Amino acid sequence: MKSYETLDPTARILMGPGPSDVHPRVLKALSATTIGHLDPEFLKIMDEVKELLRWVFQTENELTIPISATGSAGMETCFANVFERGERILIGVNGVFGMRMTQVAKKYGLTPITFDKPWGEIIDPDAIGALLETEDDIAGVAVVHAETSTGANQPLEEIGQLCKKHDVIFLVDAVTSLGGIPVKVDEWNIDACYSGTQKCLSCPPGLSPVTFSKKALAKMDARTSDVESWYLDLTMIRKYWTEDDRAYHHTAPINMNYAIREALLILYEEGMESLFARHKLHSKALLAGLAELGIEPQVEEAYRLPQLNAVKIPDGVDDKAVRGALLNKYGIEIGAGLGPLAGKIWRIGLMGNSSNERNVIYFLSSLEQNISKSGAVAAAQKIYSE
Amino acid sequence: MKSYETLDPTARILMGPGPSDVHPRVLKALSATTIGHLDPEFLKIMDEVKELLRWVFQTENELTIPISATGSAGMETCFANVFERGERILIGVNGVFGMRMTQVAKKYGLTPITFDKPWGEIIDPDAIGALLETEDDIAGVAVVHAETSTGANQPLEEIGQLCKKHDVIFLVDAVTSLGGIPVKVDEWNIDACYSGTQKCLSCPPGLSPVTFSKKALAKMDARTSDVESWYLDLTMIRKYWTEDDRAYHHTAPINMNYAIREALLILYEEGMESLFARHKLHSKALLAGLAELGIEPQVEEAYRLPQLNAVKIPDGVDDKAVRGALLNKYGIEIGAGLGPLAGKIWRIGLMGNSSNERNVIYFLSSLEQNISKSGAVAAAQKIYSE
Repeated sequence: MKSYETLDPTARILMGPGPSDVHPRVLKALSATTIGHLDPEFLKIMDEVKELLRWVFQTENELTIPISATGSAGMETCFANVFERGERILIGVNGVFGMRMTQVAKKYGLTPITFDKPWGEIIDPDAIGALLETEDDIAGVAVVHAETSTGANQPLEEIGQLCKKHDVIFLVDAVTSLGGIPVKVDEWNIDACYSGTQKCLSCPPGLSPVTFSKKALAKMDARTSDVESWYLDLTMIRKYWTEDDRAYHHTAPINMNYAIREALLILYEEGMESLFARHKLHSKALLAGLAELGIEPQVEEAYRLPQLNAVKIPDGVDDKAVRGALLNKYGIEIGAGLGPLAGKIWRIGLMGNSSNERNVIYFLSSLEQNISKSGAVAAAQKIYSE
Repeated sequence: MKSYETLDPTARILMGPGPSDVHPRVLKALSATTIGHLDPEFLKIMDEVKELLRWVFQTENELTIPISATGSAGMETCFANVFERGERILIGVNGVFGMRMTQVAKKYGLTPITFDKPWGEIIDPDAIGALLETEDDIAGVAVVHAETSTGANQPLEEIGQLCKKHDVIFLVDAVTSLGGIPVKVDEWNIDACYSGTQKCLSCPPGLSPVTFSKKALAKMDARTSDVESWYLDLTMIRKYWTEDDRAYHHTAPINMNYAIREALLILYEEGMESLFARHKLHSKALLAGLAELGIEPQVEEAYRLPQLNAVKIPDGVDDKAVRGALLNKYGIEIGAGLGPLAGKIWRIGLMGNSSNERNVIYFLSSLEQNISKSGAVAAAQKIYSE
């Protein structure tokens, strides 16, 4: 009989594209005693999760719930439920997750019309507006708010206004944005929005918060065809999460719901403005430090995400060796580049609980030592002492 | 600003249809520090989860992994990947989960041909054999091993032989059976099988173990159409779970994988024979006790599941009042009847870590007091002293 070691993962400093560092309070909540999915105490927890999700999504949307799977399942939930076979959707593609949106849309028989932009750039609202003017059979516009593969911050407000004007669905990927930068679902006229738990919410991966506007609900209610997924079919999931009879659909991931409640509560206690200011500050210190080492951001200043800093790997620096040394000698995980940016950038996450001075200083110190340069820590300190 | 209470769910005794009582070791593993989904330490954990799943499924199948969602998503994974639009599948329907199989099959454009039997009875292998003889375009046979809604134990061996003989896929729902009664995937010629974590594995809900035979893999490899789900598409998931390059598909639920590893390890340490003997013993004691109270099993003796005891509510006993008292006065959760059995049966789970003498005795004692009868505890004690 094979023997297995006791589970004891090495504590890491999670500064990649997610998961981020999980607060001990969240891990403690995760390990609370498991109760039934129809237990009155669990139903109360579900209600609180919905309330706190509405707070972080800045919405009054009734249908604001965590899907029982990771972020990509939230993406799939939006496309599968809001649209029907044959509909044409404008999708902004400037990184991995815009590409994924087109793949998911095709799975459901939708016709994606892609706006392609180089990775790291943003989708120009005017171009979307122009197409909405000339084409009259567009069912929706989908963009990625915080493109995790590039670190680009997509402006949403203007696109939301265009979607409202043309009465089309505005679908937004907020996986890496929610909790790190404002996601104003109601104010920006977002109709369908999904996120993940393991980014700026600093909860382990496993759930995908989603929210739907009245316009999206009306479109779902007017469907002439069944939703082509069972597990992600909101017509059934809604009955469990939002109606009084709580009709059983699937067994909710009980402990993950404990965890997301606690993670959201930590954000709620800190407050929205503090959250966003904190993410900005630590990104500023990080980039000031990296500039001293000759390491420049990939994304132009106006569109940089503070929670995911994509930076160019300097000439002569061995990508894999540095990432390996950071992980193995210092316990720091940072992210590699993907697709056309593989080997060219690092993705340094400062998401949620990972966004703090200790992480920034220790990362810069570790990096300095591994590329035999200096000055980064001092430059970051200067930001912190301002 | 609304204030929220500290999360502190009341400890329950989970004797319903799942979730079951979670061992403290599993809750501890669940709360271990979160690491990255591509961290070498996590890749090792993934390999161990696969090994332990092969052990409990009694299979050599390479593709034996946990799907990153609850049991119903495992069901959907099997139908979506193994079959293609237009294929005809024989589905045994004798409870909620056989019905669900037909719903899921239809979502993917399959044609279910149902064998309907009254709830609580089993599907007759001879009837399936007869149909396989007369029809030559059947792609698969799907049955529920342990029907959670009725407590019936479906014999699988003969159906597996028939499927092998006729070269059709044998698809089995082992959500409530795995870990409680033998699930011999290889010996019984099962080609696609899914389970859940919150039944006899005694892990919180959130993952769905699946396993696929070479025959199922060959059929998947020969597909002429894309899998019509993105999140559950095994052509991509396989690359992350079973190939050396570990291509990123979605972020695995890290902590839930810690938990399932620990839960499986607890089963592995106890050993297969002890597990099954334990489930049998405590069911026997429970039913002996209930018999003293005039409470009879719903399912005939040959096909009773020891882990899920469906019993008839005696005349004059108020279903809801008794279940409410058990939960609120004693902390014991038992399951209500569903569909045609609503109000007629209770479903008393003795699954995994919940299957123990303390639970049986305490439940019988609590029930005695609530229906003003006696003798049940003594009858169970007699079984234990044999």
